Amino acid sequence: DTNFDLKEHPHSRLNILTGDWILVSPHRTKRPWQGKVEATQADDRPQYDPACYLCPTNKRADGSENPDYKGSFVFTNDYSSLLLNTPDGGLNEDELLVANSQKGICRVISFSPRHDLTLPQMTTKEISKVVDVWQSEFEDLASYPWIKHIQIFENKGDIMGCSNPHPHGQIWAQNSLPVEVAKETQQQKLHFEQKGTSLLADYFALELKKQDRIVFENDHFVVLVPFWAVWPYETMIISKRHVTSILYFTEEEKHALADAIRRLTIRYDNMFETSFPYSAGMHQSPVNSGEHPYWHWHMHFYPPLLRSATVKKFMVGYEMLANPQRDITAEFAAEKLRGLSEVHYKERG
Amino acid sequence: DTNFDLKEHPHSRLNILTGDWILVSPHRTKRPWQGKVEATQADDRPQYDPACYLCPTNKRADGSENPDYKGSFVFTNDYSSLLLNTPDGGLNEDELLVANSQKGICRVISFSPRHDLTLPQMTTKEISKVVDVWQSEFEDLASYPWIKHIQIFENKGDIMGCSNPHPHGQIWAQNSLPVEVAKETQQQKLHFEQKGTSLLADYFALELKKQDRIVFENDHFVVLVPFWAVWPYETMIISKRHVTSILYFTEEEKHALADAIRRLTIRYDNMFETSFPYSAGMHQSPVNSGEHPYWHWHMHFYPPLLRSATVKKFMVGYEMLANPQRDITAEFAAEKLRGLSEVHYKERG
Ligand SMILES: O=P(O)(O)O[C@H]1O[C@H](CO)[C@@H](O)[C@H](O)[C@H]1O
Ligand SMILES: O=P(O)(O)O[C@H]1O[C@H](CO)[C@@H](O)[C@H](O)[C@H]1O
Repeated sequence: DTNFDLKEHPHSRLNILTGDWILVSPHRTKRPWQGKVEATQADDRPQYDPACYLCPTNKRADGSENPDYKGSFVFTNDYSSLLLNTPDGGLNEDELLVANSQKGICRVISFSPRHDLTLPQMTTKEISKVVDVWQSEFEDLASYPWIKHIQIFENKGDIMGCSNPHPHGQIWAQNSLPVEVAKETQQQKLHFEQKGTSLLADYFALELKKQDRIVFENDHFVVLVPFWAVWPYETMIISKRHVTSILYFTEEEKHALADAIRRLTIRYDNMFETSFPYSAGMHQSPVNSGEHPYWHWHMHFYPPLLRSATVKKFMVGYEMLANPQRDITAEFAAEKLRGLSEVHYKERG
Repeated sequence: DTNFDLKEHPHSRLNILTGDWILVSPHRTKRPWQGKVEATQADDRPQYDPACYLCPTNKRADGSENPDYKGSFVFTNDYSSLLLNTPDGGLNEDELLVANSQKGICRVISFSPRHDLTLPQMTTKEISKVVDVWQSEFEDLASYPWIKHIQIFENKGDIMGCSNPHPHGQIWAQNSLPVEVAKETQQQKLHFEQKGTSLLADYFALELKKQDRIVFENDHFVVLVPFWAVWPYETMIISKRHVTSILYFTEEEKHALADAIRRLTIRYDNMFETSFPYSAGMHQSPVNSGEHPYWHWHMHFYPPLLRSATVKKFMVGYEMLANPQRDITAEFAAEKLRGLSEVHYKERG
């Protein structure tokens, strides 16, 4: 009889941020893959594409013309999922059919005038300017008193539903709290009420002691594979200082965040020597709804690739109906990420 | 000023089965698509493939040989995610690192000896035999006293992570309750305690009155697009009789379930004249853990295609970080499904 071992035996892990569980099957990487192989996305883009609606001076769907911008460029999504002028209202039939009107603002942020770049190919200074824009957009959107939540995110790569390879992200701001954020609010609040401390501060302190899941750190941020990671190479960036949102980052912290994003995304690209697809985004305190001192700023990276540049993890049948499931351990993923160079493979001699 | 209208305006809807919300953006189908276009999966398979580990008489990974079976064939997954012999154990460090050992059994069910078929291409009688196997497998797995939950499901199509096109499904049975099932247990229990009735029985009775989201019904099952559908053409099959699991279906009900599955999946294939990918599975009462009279058997279909045989809905950035979001209404999807023929496009003259 052997002892239970996280490295060997199937087990579930608790996501302390959401209260959900995930299933880990460490032994399952041995499985051969006969399934879908993704085409690798073309990676030889011109610096300027006349057909791209994000490139400087080009026309957009609403007929307007992009300025000849130099850093970032922000505009309202021409196909916004949430709209400003939605009338109030709702529905409740016998508590069986329940709906509420949703109001919001969707914006697009071009990260660079250069059509051919991605975040890991930009300098820390250039990424810092994107962080500046995230901060000022957050401030601007929070000035609408009816906005309660601001989701800053990026879909990178066509297998992550990104429909334009020009480097860009999005912000969806709305009048209510999305499901995932409501769960994280609840869990952080509970911990704060019970212990008087930030859940994530306690968590990353323990991780820094153990080192098993740390990818790297700089003066202001810790980058780690969370114990409860779902996606194969999922990571989190956590601010060392307990602040509730990007609003409170100093110049030095913003620069350190740019450094963390750059170093992490370079490691990702180096993993399979491909432009590593992911969805990434920040989780922050709700706005215009009282104080949330327990909220601790962090950023999630959810990358789908599992085995190679062309074989991803599928979150399908069992995962959709029952429970997220992963085939490698968080510790294995962290070790792999730790071992990768911070010089982008395209920059090497 | 206009009035709030579910057909026009962005809104959230409550999933009464899980308690989660979803975001609906009815106006968003106008968005042009410049993103990823999936390759259509080859659809000209031979009746027998010597390289397929599911075809009769072929060798499997563990060295054993498949029998020359005629109907269905069940075996233990050669790459099981859950294993029988996992030692008990767990971890709890400061409530920050929390894990539990998981024990289980994973089985594969080949639906037919014919490599070239899929459920919608099989006869009602042939599908009935698959339903028989689901019932007897459920009974067999429930006879292990430590098994608490049995997930019967099918991943169809390579974009749903299916690694072998031979028609087959899976069963993952385990010693704990997966997240999605725990949520549905909670919600059905609450309703039952408050009203003394089955949540789903009350729900489909209201839907039958309205007809907006009904796809079709037969003597024993209702097929509908749930009010809170997430995937574009998501549907549910609900048993008219309130039973907690497949264990209680009569011969007549099993035949009616086969009829419902056949007619629904033919409509799916006819939608874009392609073998329609999906993940589907049953939700049923937990086993070996007391009585759950509030549980009402149902089956979910989660198909990813949105616009055509090659353009799917991506559940990415906003959806992963914040909230599921859809671009067409449940009512539009139901109307479309209602309008489709129940003669498979490949069978037409
Ligand atoms: O078990 P299979 O068919 O090899 O694998 C497929 O279904 C499983 C259960 O939904 C998933 O965990 C895998 O990601 C998917 O590729
Ligand atoms: O807004 P985009 O880039 O057109 O669309 C992409 O991101 C959205 C937000 O995550 C998703 O709803 C879409 O499914 C995806 O294709």
